[in-house]
Amino acid sequence: MSVPSADRHPAAALDDLRTRLDHSHLITDPDVLQSYRQDWAKAPDPGTPLAVVRARTTEDVQEVMRWASTHSVPIVPRGAGSGLSGGATAVDGGIVLSTELMRDLHVDPVTRTATVQPGLYNAEVKQAVAEHGLWYPPDPSSYEICSIGGNIATNAGGLCCVKYGVTTDYVLGMTVVLADGTAVRLGGPRLKDTAGLSLTKLFVGSEGTLGVVTEIILRLIPAQPPRSTVVGIFPDVVACSEAVLAITSRIRPAMLEFMETVSIRAVEADLRMGLDTDAGAMLLAQSDLTGPDRAAETEFMAEAFRTHGATEVFATDDPDEGEQFTMARRAAFTSLGKVGTLLLEDVGVPLPSLPRLVAGIEEISARRDVPIALVAHAGDGNTHPIIVLTDDDPDRAERARLAFGEVMDLAIGMGGTITGEHGVGRLKAPWLPAQLGDDVMELTRRIKNALDPQGILNPGTML
Amino acid sequence: MSVPSADRHPAAALDDLRTRLDHSHLITDPDVLQSYRQDWAKAPDPGTPLAVVRARTTEDVQEVMRWASTHSVPIVPRGAGSGLSGGATAVDGGIVLSTELMRDLHVDPVTRTATVQPGLYNAEVKQAVAEHGLWYPPDPSSYEICSIGGNIATNAGGLCCVKYGVTTDYVLGMTVVLADGTAVRLGGPRLKDTAGLSLTKLFVGSEGTLGVVTEIILRLIPAQPPRSTVVGIFPDVVACSEAVLAITSRIRPAMLEFMETVSIRAVEADLRMGLDTDAGAMLLAQSDLTGPDRAAETEFMAEAFRTHGATEVFATDDPDEGEQFTMARRAAFTSLGKVGTLLLEDVGVPLPSLPRLVAGIEEISARRDVPIALVAHAGDGNTHPIIVLTDDDPDRAERARLAFGEVMDLAIGMGGTITGEHGVGRLKAPWLPAQLGDDVMELTRRIKNALDPQGILNPGTML
Repeated sequence: MSVPSADRHPAAALDDLRTRLDHSHLITDPDVLQSYRQDWAKAPDPGTPLAVVRARTTEDVQEVMRWASTHSVPIVPRGAGSGLSGGATAVDGGIVLSTELMRDLHVDPVTRTATVQPGLYNAEVKQAVAEHGLWYPPDPSSYEICSIGGNIATNAGGLCCVKYGVTTDYVLGMTVVLADGTAVRLGGPRLKDTAGLSLTKLFVGSEGTLGVVTEIILRLIPAQPPRSTVVGIFPDVVACSEAVLAITSRIRPAMLEFMETVSIRAVEADLRMGLDTDAGAMLLAQSDLTGPDRAAETEFMAEAFRTHGATEVFATDDPDEGEQFTMARRAAFTSLGKVGTLLLEDVGVPLPSLPRLVAGIEEISARRDVPIALVAHAGDGNTHPIIVLTDDDPDRAERARLAFGEVMDLAIGMGGTITGEHGVGRLKAPWLPAQLGDDVMELTRRIKNALDPQGILNPGTML
Repeated sequence: MSVPSADRHPAAALDDLRTRLDHSHLITDPDVLQSYRQDWAKAPDPGTPLAVVRARTTEDVQEVMRWASTHSVPIVPRGAGSGLSGGATAVDGGIVLSTELMRDLHVDPVTRTATVQPGLYNAEVKQAVAEHGLWYPPDPSSYEICSIGGNIATNAGGLCCVKYGVTTDYVLGMTVVLADGTAVRLGGPRLKDTAGLSLTKLFVGSEGTLGVVTEIILRLIPAQPPRSTVVGIFPDVVACSEAVLAITSRIRPAMLEFMETVSIRAVEADLRMGLDTDAGAMLLAQSDLTGPDRAAETEFMAEAFRTHGATEVFATDDPDEGEQFTMARRAAFTSLGKVGTLLLEDVGVPLPSLPRLVAGIEEISARRDVPIALVAHAGDGNTHPIIVLTDDDPDRAERARLAFGEVMDLAIGMGGTITGEHGVGRLKAPWLPAQLGDDVMELTRRIKNALDPQGILNPGTML
């Protein structure tokens, strides 16, 4: 698929687009364009778009796509811009199509669904449904600043997934605008609907390469009871990983998160929470069972921590105290970002390989002489190695770049994935063929070409 | 998509195929072919296949597909033959490709996954994982005689779905053989993997129209505690449906099933279980919470039953006693099958429309003067109206045929689905466009054509 070239007369064409939009803003102010060139990942060499459209309605998104098809203009869909893989990186001569102003929401407690527009933050959806005694589980650490549309685009995960699954498990239907401007409604507020192909699920995780999602029907579950928390301090990351396997092979905790020294120290330096900065690693587990089951589950986890070398184990039934630890874990990216420039990874492996993965990451860090912090949704084998660059040394930057690839190669070699929840975007696209293989890449291209024959939807992302 | 015509020299071509198969049986015995022409649904006008292949390996399935592509021979994939929509209906001059002999299974308790071949029965998978303290939730009523491969093909559901979701929620990866014989591995034993398009999920529910699944990686969850059961007897189906809404709007039971008079009487006549044959309808609810939460949930449901007109409410914490009622519910198809010939429906609606749907079905039954039994996975709005024909009266058969379509039209008109869990197959294919609309049908065809350009995979099913 070649990246399409934009129309030769962009200014005139843009005026045409502007007149078609009823409710949306078309912006060409260079300062505004500048701020829409990259997402949080700061992928290198972003293009400069012709314009940014802040869409308000499905109809306006349709107008943008019809116009883009006519003029072969690349469209880069964008949510809140909090993406960590460069999936919203502007293309020269293209349009950045932002859904940030599409913020309608309707909760139906009887069907336990919420119909939402993509611009809402994840946290806003959670809060709105909580008022009905309901819960939308997917919880990226960035839940306060990431949009539901972006969550759909990347099939986002979070801390809940070890027990409650990922975004796709909560998507029952959607409205999506295709490359040619056709809007289709897929699925609906029904837990069961197997009429026709599973198109809804195909669009989840498609990173804006197949269409632009303008409305989503989310499945909700009843609000869960408050949680008990168990924290374990370990001498090293491998012992810690062994404790993870001992737990997942027997029970399914509501959360099972991991931080190692570099991350713990960065968070402590940033937030002064009283974390143990001498710890080699920390595991953070939660139970949301009730009654005697909860006590049994937390005691089982505490015992597994001790058996696998924890030097300290702390348990609390106080949800606020537990939330403090969870906040520390969520803060890792932000706190590390204050230490240096970050290269974020998102590799995952089948759980039995977790100890080998973390050992391998330590080896890469030592060999390349670049610090790699590590936090992980350990209970589902999804890790975030974070390469931290604290100076401008070009040699170190080059070694960091090599380490970035080697971490993905390592995961692929263990039958793992280059991305558990952030998406492929631009940063990981070069590694996708090594994970999927030629035949799956070809299958992927066949579907991409069937849905976007001109290749105008988010060129350069994923494929 | 036109149905392809088979090769002009089928006999010679078949010999060629036979020599390519290492481990699988190619059968041309007319008596055997006869038994593979239809599935349980007995769709009208089945074709006569050239041969049946009972595949044993992915490689042999690849050989069949390569051969079929070369000779443009239609392939009808078949699981256990228990399908209720005619999705495994033979095509003249085609091959029925049965996966019934592919029965390998491996359970990994650490990742909580099972890697299974498609020929295993659902019940066999459940039993094998139970030995590791794990549970595979999807539970079609036919779980003892339906295959996992068929469950994947139809995105099967069951009685657990109101709380635990459907088949696609438990599929993490698969090996699938494409139309041209290429075998691809999709996903893997990882809860989180968002690298590339969500191809795994696209194949779930595709009814053998996109490829032949030869291995599946299933997500498992820990075995759940034994259940408490609440049974309510209601004067009529609408009151009963209102009770359902009162429950689903507040809690999420582990099961919420519905039977009305005709079904109750058929089961009682068949199995002599002591069911109340004067009941207008019966609701069957279960809780799998533990401790005081369970008592609170069962009491809440019992109270909702009473408030909405239940004339009798029975509760038990004895799992065996509860299982007796569940067996009665599961037996409905079989018991009704002893009363007459059945036309099985599988319509679903958003839950608030459930009372209108059941009232509308009663109206169709009265107007067309054909008995329509009704069982339902009421908690997720998925109903099985069952038209029962007890004689050979051609006029009544014609009215039954009209009623069959009117029930689907009714559901579609309420924003519902023509199939919640059985698949479209052949029997419901004429109604699919009315549900999905022209644009979604076109999108579906684009994907079908991209993956199966010759249209050799299960022609006549779904599309």
